[in-house]
Amino acid sequence: MMNNLSGIAASSGIAIGKAFLMAEPNLTVEKKKIAEIEQEITRFHEAITSSKQELQLIREQTANQMGEENAAIFDAHLLVLSDPELLQATEDKVRSDEVNAEFALQEISQTFVVMFEQMDNEYMRERAADIQDVTKRVLSKLLNIETSKISAIEEEVIIISNDLVPSDTAQLNRQFVKGFITDMGGRTSHSAIMARSMEIPAVVGTQNATAIIKSNDFLIIDGDSGEVFVNPTEDMIKAYEQKQLGLESQKRQLAELKDKKTVTLDGRQVEIASNIGTPQEVENVLANGGEGIGLYRTEFLYMERETMPTEEEQFQAYKQVLEKMGERPVVVRTLDIGGDKQLPYLSMPEEMNPFLGVRAIRLCLEEQEIFRTQLRALLRASCFGNLKIMFPMIATIEEFREAKKILLEEKKTLKLEGVSVSEEIEIGIMVETPSTAVLADQYAKEVDFFSIGTNDLIQYTMAADRMNERVSYLYQPYNPAILRLVKMVVDAAHAEGKWAGMCGEMAGDATAIPLLIGLGLDEFSMSAPSMLKARSQINQLSHHEMERFAEQALNMQTAEQVKQLVEEKLQV
Amino acid sequence: MMNNLSGIAASSGIAIGKAFLMAEPNLTVEKKKIAEIEQEITRFHEAITSSKQELQLIREQTANQMGEENAAIFDAHLLVLSDPELLQATEDKVRSDEVNAEFALQEISQTFVVMFEQMDNEYMRERAADIQDVTKRVLSKLLNIETSKISAIEEEVIIISNDLVPSDTAQLNRQFVKGFITDMGGRTSHSAIMARSMEIPAVVGTQNATAIIKSNDFLIIDGDSGEVFVNPTEDMIKAYEQKQLGLESQKRQLAELKDKKTVTLDGRQVEIASNIGTPQEVENVLANGGEGIGLYRTEFLYMERETMPTEEEQFQAYKQVLEKMGERPVVVRTLDIGGDKQLPYLSMPEEMNPFLGVRAIRLCLEEQEIFRTQLRALLRASCFGNLKIMFPMIATIEEFREAKKILLEEKKTLKLEGVSVSEEIEIGIMVETPSTAVLADQYAKEVDFFSIGTNDLIQYTMAADRMNERVSYLYQPYNPAILRLVKMVVDAAHAEGKWAGMCGEMAGDATAIPLLIGLGLDEFSMSAPSMLKARSQINQLSHHEMERFAEQALNMQTAEQVKQLVEEKLQV
Repeated sequence: MMNNLSGIAASSGIAIGKAFLMAEPNLTVEKKKIAEIEQEITRFHEAITSSKQELQLIREQTANQMGEENAAIFDAHLLVLSDPELLQATEDKVRSDEVNAEFALQEISQTFVVMFEQMDNEYMRERAADIQDVTKRVLSKLLNIETSKISAIEEEVIIISNDLVPSDTAQLNRQFVKGFITDMGGRTSHSAIMARSMEIPAVVGTQNATAIIKSNDFLIIDGDSGEVFVNPTEDMIKAYEQKQLGLESQKRQLAELKDKKTVTLDGRQVEIASNIGTPQEVENVLANGGEGIGLYRTEFLYMERETMPTEEEQFQAYKQVLEKMGERPVVVRTLDIGGDKQLPYLSMPEEMNPFLGVRAIRLCLEEQEIFRTQLRALLRASCFGNLKIMFPMIATIEEFREAKKILLEEKKTLKLEGVSVSEEIEIGIMVETPSTAVLADQYAKEVDFFSIGTNDLIQYTMAADRMNERVSYLYQPYNPAILRLVKMVVDAAHAEGKWAGMCGEMAGDATAIPLLIGLGLDEFSMSAPSMLKARSQINQLSHHEMERFAEQALNMQTAEQVKQLVEEKLQV
Repeated sequence: MMNNLSGIAASSGIAIGKAFLMAEPNLTVEKKKIAEIEQEITRFHEAITSSKQELQLIREQTANQMGEENAAIFDAHLLVLSDPELLQATEDKVRSDEVNAEFALQEISQTFVVMFEQMDNEYMRERAADIQDVTKRVLSKLLNIETSKISAIEEEVIIISNDLVPSDTAQLNRQFVKGFITDMGGRTSHSAIMARSMEIPAVVGTQNATAIIKSNDFLIIDGDSGEVFVNPTEDMIKAYEQKQLGLESQKRQLAELKDKKTVTLDGRQVEIASNIGTPQEVENVLANGGEGIGLYRTEFLYMERETMPTEEEQFQAYKQVLEKMGERPVVVRTLDIGGDKQLPYLSMPEEMNPFLGVRAIRLCLEEQEIFRTQLRALLRASCFGNLKIMFPMIATIEEFREAKKILLEEKKTLKLEGVSVSEEIEIGIMVETPSTAVLADQYAKEVDFFSIGTNDLIQYTMAADRMNERVSYLYQPYNPAILRLVKMVVDAAHAEGKWAGMCGEMAGDATAIPLLIGLGLDEFSMSAPSMLKARSQINQLSHHEMERFAEQALNMQTAEQVKQLVEEKLQV
């Protein structure tokens, strides 16, 4: 029977194949009276030990295949398995209540889960999920039930599951797993992020895929539309196979551009760069022909942990990125925390409008020790590649001067300590506040470069929270007001012989790219998978034509008109 | 003994005189066993009746002296005295517990107060204060204690009090009360607002004035600095008497400008107008030489009540303002709710960043019935004066077009109903979002006028919440970026033969005024007491000189430089 589902398009591409339904193992626990207490405790210890070995193995697999950063989650799991409170409390319960280890563990772990879930701290709530994941693993050992059969898959399938936890995705074999569908999750859930980084088509958040789809059903997944077709007609399969072939051929064509420059028809060369969050992403950037890193979001180094990263930890991360990128430029943004991003170990007073509050450079100038540690790590790493440092959320020239002063102080100190520091580091700013765009000519006298952060620039210019769905109609990248601000920044940079880039979502948007070429943008930084498409598009544009075209857009009244102009004239 | 205090400067001017300490009456209640129950109930009813009569009298006095709007608070008090729940519950308690009425009333009223105070609704929490105020009045009747001796004051004094409640301020005799000082309150507390509207110097929030000052102490209050001097030296008294004379002579000089135009030395005429919140303020506007109302904040009509104001109620308010202002222009801003302003009877979902959420025109376009009611009331009132309608928080031209379309629809409907509507109504917008300032040339083709709302424009341009003290250093009216946006708006208006005004705090700021004259602003709207000073300042400026001066400021790098420029060159 044919049947359609839809969910959230989580990872691009088309997958066609047989369903493999990952059933949840039945880990129901019965309470039993135990006579041989010591024997039961030993059985519990054995289950812990074998769970640890299993996790250690998965951790190594993950580190090898997907890098240290992705493997870190299993360190958290291993930590739970060594938690004396959890282990001791379980043992105590076995002894005092004379019950089986499964029952004792489940009761104790549930208490911890409830406690952590109620905490007003996202980091702690995530620990609750870790405890649950680990408890399932130990229970499956005690009950002698196989938890996940993912690693055993040896034919081409599409996985259907309620949710994929990190230990599941880590064991996915890319050779056999063609795609996956989950009931739970959103575009930014763990499984969606993993799917994109593994380039496996995926649809998440379908709510009821596991209820509707049976093992061996024949499936089509469209990871761009979020559609899932269950037992489709022959015609449909043919149509999607064609589409799949088209995508693959497009991909091959794009792959040919990997080591090419990005040059318009009339010879204007620009740089296509990538936004990254972790050193592990660099390989993907290089594989997709990135000419540089236009935005390294360093806050990921600070998140998902209980203490501030040390200078040495940061140095290692920055060095790794710089070394891998070689001569290619790497623009590192200093810590951008606050607003919607909090750190569990840094208390920040609650604010009525956090997006208009103490975030990014404002916080760093207040908490100078955090800032100085990061700058020292960056300066130490500077000799290992082509580093550029960028300050986020600059709203006044004084803020830039103050941040630069601190940077130069740390540089001086390091040099006195005998550490070698590059003398070529460019120092620039993000243009995210309207004030900075409007005053760009003044900034251009002092900064080495600009990078326009459109996500924030648009939200402040339109006075509309980009996370608030009720005002999402006001998030308008094509609004002529936004284009004018971009022009002010680019013109200001060029007048002083500096360069201007863009690292917001707009830089990778096919409708915006012709306008940005016309406005004279020098660098386009986007997600790694978008880069080759952007290069291909730019290679087919005439800079002079786009200049006239942008001029037209600048004098329009609405975002809608601009969008229509681009779509009609350029068939984007 | 000489002693100094300081508090919050709540109302401008200097007062010198004897302290009158308003002691809190001792309303301590003892629980007593009552034998004659019916007699006790009668005594309770008598206290209620006499409290009602007293309140009715105060209400009328207030309405006569300070307008209906200020008298409304006593309607709320009278409502409490007619509340069957409160009265019946008190009676029931007297009967069942056989206790005295004072004790029963206090217990019951306390229950209500606690209940209301815990409600998550500001309107309800204010009801708690009403109940407390009224309960004190009834208790004083039952205990036979005089509550307030304010009305009995018959010599010149400065009042010292823990706080002044509305029924106190209503009874202040301006002839004798030269100033007041309170322990509690802030710049926007009821007593501070009343002091400013009565033009009595006041210092509030001193924390301990009632503890430190004794009746008949000799005092100096400086309502501009927030200082209070207790038993000062003769020299000090002389110095302050001189200062007071200076202020009075300045006031007299300014008063001579009341019916004059506002014209620069080289003949450029501009308009000095006032911001108001209620029809009662119009008299103060006229008394201070206002040439128009540049901003009538209509949201006060919607606040402090339990239901939406009817079309008729709004019509009466608008008509009253228009009639009193005669031919002078009255710019009415349509409802600006949301952000930091909520209505108790309109549920709005909580937002993460309310200043970047559904507020002002965004809300009105969503809740069209509220908007249409207001527009009908405005259109009906339009024939009674010189009405201009202004939409707040416009961020796209589509929003303006949609709002205007609705206005024209209602106009058509009214005319079909035979209601006469003025054909001269100008329709304009507030410029509060950076997008609108940057695109002002496009808007200027469609709007009749602009009014720059600097409070919001600055907060969005600098991306800094104007209510958040931790980023208050970024609230920079003199930042060259802000001046450039103002220039864009003024130039755009003039290019299309339209006018541009300003109704944010900046319009009345002596440091900003020379720059704004230089930028070509046509209308300056500010608080009524600031108008004559602004006129006097502008009359002494040369427009051409200020143009060159503003040009210099536009090319500066920081707000600090601009401020220094004005202060040095103009001795502001």
